[in-house]
Amino acid sequence: MSDQGTTPTPSPAPPAPTGRPPKVTNRGRTAVPVASSNSDSTDMPEFELFGSPGPRGLPPLTEYLDIFDVDMMRRPDESNKMQHHTAFYSSDQLVVRRGQEFQVNITFNRPYDPARDKIAVEFVIGSSPQYSKGTYIPVFPTKQRKGSWEGRITNKSDKTVTMGITPTANCIVGKYHMYVAVSTPFGIRRTRKDHSRDLYILFNPWVADDAVFLDDEPEREECVMSEMGLIFHGSSDDVSERNWNYGQFNYGILDACLYIMDRAEMPITDRGDPIKISRKASAMLNSRDDEGVLVGSWSGDYTYGVAPTSWTGSTDILLGYASSKMPVCYAQCWVYAAVFNTFLRCLGIPSRVVTNFYSAHDNDGNLKTDIILDDNGRIDRNLTRDSIWNYHCWNECFMSRPDLPPGFGGWQVVDATPQETSDGMYRCGPASVKAIKHGQICFPFDAAFVFAEVNSDVVFYSRSRDGTMEPVKVNRTHVGRMVLTKTPGEMTRRDITDQYKFSEGSAEERTVLEKAEEYGCKREKSNPPPADVDLVLPTLEVSVGDDFSFSLELVNRSDQQRTVDAYISGSVVFYTGVTSSEFLFMTPTVEIEPNKSVKELVEVQSKSYMKQLVEQANLHFIVTGKVKETGQIVTAMKVVNLHNPKLIIEVSGGGKVSEEMMASVQFTNPFTFSLEGVYIRMEGPGIMPPKFKYYSLIAGGSSLTWTEFFIPLRAGSTRVIATLDCPSLRQVLGQATITIEP
Amino acid sequence: MSDQGTTPTPSPAPPAPTGRPPKVTNRGRTAVPVASSNSDSTDMPEFELFGSPGPRGLPPLTEYLDIFDVDMMRRPDESNKMQHHTAFYSSDQLVVRRGQEFQVNITFNRPYDPARDKIAVEFVIGSSPQYSKGTYIPVFPTKQRKGSWEGRITNKSDKTVTMGITPTANCIVGKYHMYVAVSTPFGIRRTRKDHSRDLYILFNPWVADDAVFLDDEPEREECVMSEMGLIFHGSSDDVSERNWNYGQFNYGILDACLYIMDRAEMPITDRGDPIKISRKASAMLNSRDDEGVLVGSWSGDYTYGVAPTSWTGSTDILLGYASSKMPVCYAQCWVYAAVFNTFLRCLGIPSRVVTNFYSAHDNDGNLKTDIILDDNGRIDRNLTRDSIWNYHCWNECFMSRPDLPPGFGGWQVVDATPQETSDGMYRCGPASVKAIKHGQICFPFDAAFVFAEVNSDVVFYSRSRDGTMEPVKVNRTHVGRMVLTKTPGEMTRRDITDQYKFSEGSAEERTVLEKAEEYGCKREKSNPPPADVDLVLPTLEVSVGDDFSFSLELVNRSDQQRTVDAYISGSVVFYTGVTSSEFLFMTPTVEIEPNKSVKELVEVQSKSYMKQLVEQANLHFIVTGKVKETGQIVTAMKVVNLHNPKLIIEVSGGGKVSEEMMASVQFTNPFTFSLEGVYIRMEGPGIMPPKFKYYSLIAGGSSLTWTEFFIPLRAGSTRVIATLDCPSLRQVLGQATITIEP
Repeated sequence: MSDQGTTPTPSPAPPAPTGRPPKVTNRGRTAVPVASSNSDSTDMPEFELFGSPGPRGLPPLTEYLDIFDVDMMRRPDESNKMQHHTAFYSSDQLVVRRGQEFQVNITFNRPYDPARDKIAVEFVIGSSPQYSKGTYIPVFPTKQRKGSWEGRITNKSDKTVTMGITPTANCIVGKYHMYVAVSTPFGIRRTRKDHSRDLYILFNPWVADDAVFLDDEPEREECVMSEMGLIFHGSSDDVSERNWNYGQFNYGILDACLYIMDRAEMPITDRGDPIKISRKASAMLNSRDDEGVLVGSWSGDYTYGVAPTSWTGSTDILLGYASSKMPVCYAQCWVYAAVFNTFLRCLGIPSRVVTNFYSAHDNDGNLKTDIILDDNGRIDRNLTRDSIWNYHCWNECFMSRPDLPPGFGGWQVVDATPQETSDGMYRCGPASVKAIKHGQICFPFDAAFVFAEVNSDVVFYSRSRDGTMEPVKVNRTHVGRMVLTKTPGEMTRRDITDQYKFSEGSAEERTVLEKAEEYGCKREKSNPPPADVDLVLPTLEVSVGDDFSFSLELVNRSDQQRTVDAYISGSVVFYTGVTSSEFLFMTPTVEIEPNKSVKELVEVQSKSYMKQLVEQANLHFIVTGKVKETGQIVTAMKVVNLHNPKLIIEVSGGGKVSEEMMASVQFTNPFTFSLEGVYIRMEGPGIMPPKFKYYSLIAGGSSLTWTEFFIPLRAGSTRVIATLDCPSLRQVLGQATITIEP
Repeated sequence: MSDQGTTPTPSPAPPAPTGRPPKVTNRGRTAVPVASSNSDSTDMPEFELFGSPGPRGLPPLTEYLDIFDVDMMRRPDESNKMQHHTAFYSSDQLVVRRGQEFQVNITFNRPYDPARDKIAVEFVIGSSPQYSKGTYIPVFPTKQRKGSWEGRITNKSDKTVTMGITPTANCIVGKYHMYVAVSTPFGIRRTRKDHSRDLYILFNPWVADDAVFLDDEPEREECVMSEMGLIFHGSSDDVSERNWNYGQFNYGILDACLYIMDRAEMPITDRGDPIKISRKASAMLNSRDDEGVLVGSWSGDYTYGVAPTSWTGSTDILLGYASSKMPVCYAQCWVYAAVFNTFLRCLGIPSRVVTNFYSAHDNDGNLKTDIILDDNGRIDRNLTRDSIWNYHCWNECFMSRPDLPPGFGGWQVVDATPQETSDGMYRCGPASVKAIKHGQICFPFDAAFVFAEVNSDVVFYSRSRDGTMEPVKVNRTHVGRMVLTKTPGEMTRRDITDQYKFSEGSAEERTVLEKAEEYGCKREKSNPPPADVDLVLPTLEVSVGDDFSFSLELVNRSDQQRTVDAYISGSVVFYTGVTSSEFLFMTPTVEIEPNKSVKELVEVQSKSYMKQLVEQANLHFIVTGKVKETGQIVTAMKVVNLHNPKLIIEVSGGGKVSEEMMASVQFTNPFTFSLEGVYIRMEGPGIMPPKFKYYSLIAGGSSLTWTEFFIPLRAGSTRVIATLDCPSLRQVLGQATITIEP
């Protein structure tokens, strides 16, 4: 290397360019961008020549077979949609399920001759069709030339052939375009692109080879075909229910579901896998991270959108998201779960909404929820920062888990409610319910997180003056008290707690908790001796606005006198267990004779809580105390769900498909004060699209009736569902069951 | 319910509010926002009273112990930093490691009397300190009052006590504040907050209880303490190396690493877990999704930032990100891996950069990389869309895996390069290397993805005229040819392929591939018979700008004459395997006598490729062909790395700590054309911060010398590292090894 030549002199560096860096391209990184939108597509050429045209131009193609017409047989009453359980989809296109044959009619200029004519139908999805990626699939009518999807001629009459096509049971789910191609020695001639030959291919729970195969007809009928939702809330000893119209067959919903995956830029090639789709959707159903479907809010201020308690179904939400391309306001857990359910059922993945009562949150494998008491036994609200949700809704979806060892297929938990710590992202699952039950929480995805939601301990710590903390009571049964879902085919609840947990105190339960600890779950190890005084709070049913009272019972199980310094605290809480305000506080000192019990009356006046009410009107009573003689800490907790007034729904008219009917909603303001800014919403699965009415003011004691006409689309038992919602009174519900004759 | 009263009339709904929805709050959702920033903090009160002040105001605290001074013993030459292996950190604060005792001196107004005085030191991290979350930790000097961290008095002299404090080996890693508190019957008195009492607690690979314990001193010395990087690239038969200054001890780097987790809003309570930290960092090191550290670009146009090939170390990148709070431009895989390595070593997680030669990408469990040939055996570049990276760099970090069954601790793959499909997010790992080797890819995180990177098959398909595809050749050994990392304590390479794979063709290898298939990996099943003609391409070492030639050898292993129609294609490729442009194309027909071989000469002139060169100057030769007599398809591939000119570095001067020295970079432009817009960069671990010089033009044949002065900070063997980079010539490297005496 030489040192000669003109020596270059250094210059000042050029000024740094300002502004944001340019958009990153795939140049150099990948040969083509990854296809990640189902609405993008390529046009296949109408003529594809082998070699260049000869000196005389294009050879005459006229002597070969020409395609006159293609009929996708896409009407709801034709065999395709009937046999594929897709007749309910309001779509102009053909909708079929994978792993099962469907038929198309192809008409040529002359009768088709298998010996002489080479034809194929070609299916294409996304912008970058590739045979080896399953995004370009040629299907041939003869056994000799086999593609990945099977084809056969099922009928021939004159110039028309009927071709039966069976997509593989693991093919990509989404919207395809179908071409018919004729191969000649000079090249390939194809049909021109036409939207009438678009078709949707869905998951198929009726076919054994599909990863979502569910071999139970009532369950399948409920978890794929039912639009009628029943979602449980309240508390485990006073369960309420909420009706919901999933609306998965409504016009535009299927396209909205595909749009959600497009918006997530989910690679097309991943869209045959229910594990990947359900995981991606759990992230996309909430707006965190990725501008997904629903904005969560628990704040009580829903000025900029619809209150979570006001929705009656998923249709408005999904169509709103797909049309505005902006997240929809607002959701809480059951809204996330209900819309997620629509998404899954619409694509053909069996799914259901479940409710877990007393659900530990934001724990991620730490099986402790801490309540800190001061050294007098009173709750320290500054230091107590964990909350237990009164209930939490999530989804289960049904699929095999080839990515896990055998035994973990079946129901999988997925959850779209944005949690603080599920692998650091706002998504959760699929986590195998069987893995959760058996403490096998080392398998993806987020099993440890769901395990904590149903298995956490509530630990009461006593904090002494010098700052040391000591666990004084561990409640191992409060969290995950009950898991409910709708009974297939009935409007009742089904207790599925035993699918998540072995029975309390059983040997299996202990083994499971030990197994989970091996995988890093942290449990409270200390086992403070139980106190010999019990506190008992009764179960209450109270209507909102009522004065009421109840008795706290203190039971002395010892042979000596006991004196309890008790703290009785009543708070208005959100359903997330977060305290809004304390409306009642008593500090009785109670003396109890040996082996006796004493009742302490607690009186609650409506005026003390009515002004503080938030959202779902839950009152939370916590009693803590210290036994003077022994220093033991005693506690009791109870959630009281105030029952709201109801809407009265009356339905009249024909009760037959396509005959006009009428539904009226009646409401009387039971309070002395006026309700302002009131929305009433109404809809019904298969009978009525979502409708709403706004009342700026409903004076105290006044009544209203709102009437709407509707035309049932299909037969069967269904409901009209209505809600009333305003800032000072939320979650007023009503429904009427009707049966539509064919 | 009554129908009487004034009937409210419906109003038109109020106008929909415009604009974006308001910022979502945590109100109602959680009691307090989750603490997710280490730069946020709360001030603990200076006086914390028990009960309200009495009628006469505050009681006199003067009779109790008063705190005069707190000395954290934070100088590099004091025992804390020496014993904790943290003396190299350029920080004014104390830096220690968890699970190991450190000392603080506390001076009071009078001698401390253990019988009478109640003192505690309190450690606080984040905005919402809670005892039960490990974010508020009181430590007591006596055995009787035990907190989670142990404390003891290790020395007493007059009014000063030395307290030894041992954080638990699983405590949160980050920046804490320490208070000294004195407890009196009336309340607690504390030191006022002062940044001199901030301290950093890091992971501790020297302590058996820490999840990152690494019981191998040379490995630990390399993977935690070494700032000198050696990163391999090129191709498996012509390996090149790149020097890198990790700079994990440089001023501001530790704060930058904590900022990265703050920017990710990573909950403070997760920051004791190396699994969660390394997973989160793999997402945050790239800018996709989350405005992370580095913007990837493979485009060749780096106008808006620094070319990936131009960086000499991590310091500029991390300090730039922390100060601008904007992603830094630009990175390719080794830059991501090198900066990730700095992050991990800085926090005390043992880590190393590894290079996988021929790395399959974007596959996610599909173990096939497809190359499509037309029915003459020529590559169809329109249909061939997969690419195999010539090499890919990722990181391994060392930790136990309590979340998995026993046996999967140790080295874990993490990868910050944004992939297209790793669980749908731009992050990857930690995936257990042992799990990958044994095909146990059902365990988190992303093991299936890494498995595919080292185990994919290359499948050649032949596409016939009617569109059907047939696999004609499967190469099962091309991908994952070799995995290299730096040898501990030496500037040489270490082959660790056997940590990822059993030897080719062994029984174990077959078992592993079968196991992986059970978990959903899709392999090519067909096994087309090998052709009886082999194509052999030689290994070449060529300098950029040279004309060169080589012989393609065609070997006929049959007893009959063979005729091959060959397609020889030479392309300029990115290191990602993506083809930029074809500069050579030959279609010889070669006749080979039975059991003979024929050599076909291929001549390459520099002018044919020089204008097309991109980036790292790789030429890719692919030969495909069809044997006329048998219809067999034959293939051969070879990557030729053109060797660039080098920089000459000369160092002179004292060679002692704190004595000024001089380094000069010399370069001669070997080409006839000018180089424009040239940056030269230089730095050295422990001796020189990053520096650069800009030359607007270096004329053909001319030379330059750039000289910089520097003052070594510490003793030992180190290197001066330099790069030269401009749009028409990238990746010109140079280095000089020097030894600094104490």
